[in-house]
Amino acid sequence: MNIEKSSNIKKDPVEIEGAKDVEIRWLISEKDGAENFAMRMFELQPGGYTPLHTHPQEHEVFVLEGEGTFVFEGQEHPFGTEYVVFVPPNKEHRFMNTGETVLRMLCIIPTSSG
Amino acid sequence: MNIEKSSNIKKDPVEIEGAKDVEIRWLISEKDGAENFAMRMFELQPGGYTPLHTHPQEHEVFVLEGEGTFVFEGQEHPFGTEYVVFVPPNKEHRFMNTGETVLRMLCIIPTSSG
Repeated sequence: MNIEKSSNIKKDPVEIEGAKDVEIRWLISEKDGAENFAMRMFELQPGGYTPLHTHPQEHEVFVLEGEGTFVFEGQEHPFGTEYVVFVPPNKEHRFMNTGETVLRMLCIIPTSSG
Repeated sequence: MNIEKSSNIKKDPVEIEGAKDVEIRWLISEKDGAENFAMRMFELQPGGYTPLHTHPQEHEVFVLEGEGTFVFEGQEHPFGTEYVVFVPPNKEHRFMNTGETVLRMLCIIPTSSG
């Protein structure tokens, strides 16, 4: 069991090609005993974005704060606070902070062992 | 792919024994193509609670709004907004709204096919 204020969990920069001004907190992961899926929180500064990429894991996203654009297979979809996004596997996508404040969102993915 | 404001998703009462003043929205589930895990949003009114129960699926919980008490194997753990809770499988637990406002939280579980 683990219960914790999320802001107390360490935040790291996302230093991968194609990402700009993105930070991540691993809120729940395999080290907590989560065998099937992991919960991360992303913070994107205004103008920041995640890489335009494709991968075999699905994403489940919940927007906590801010607004942005979800790019999915070449189409742009605007979103705001409390939007939910299901990103199926193997589809090109990117999240962009198009607002003037921080964009924070949860993103849940299957673990490698899940 | 699905992108939607969560408040537009249907909310239903949780009518199971041991639950009081709890409602649920299935934000992402197998019908969206989510094969591994599902995202639900729970709303508990002040004084409401989920059943004191045990099950083989783990929970990953993120508190969106409000405050409450997490009962885990006989111990009470207070929590507030933006807390994260990992509930391992097969451990007795309950969420209670001990505040004076609505308690809203996300709860992610593995799907039956996951």
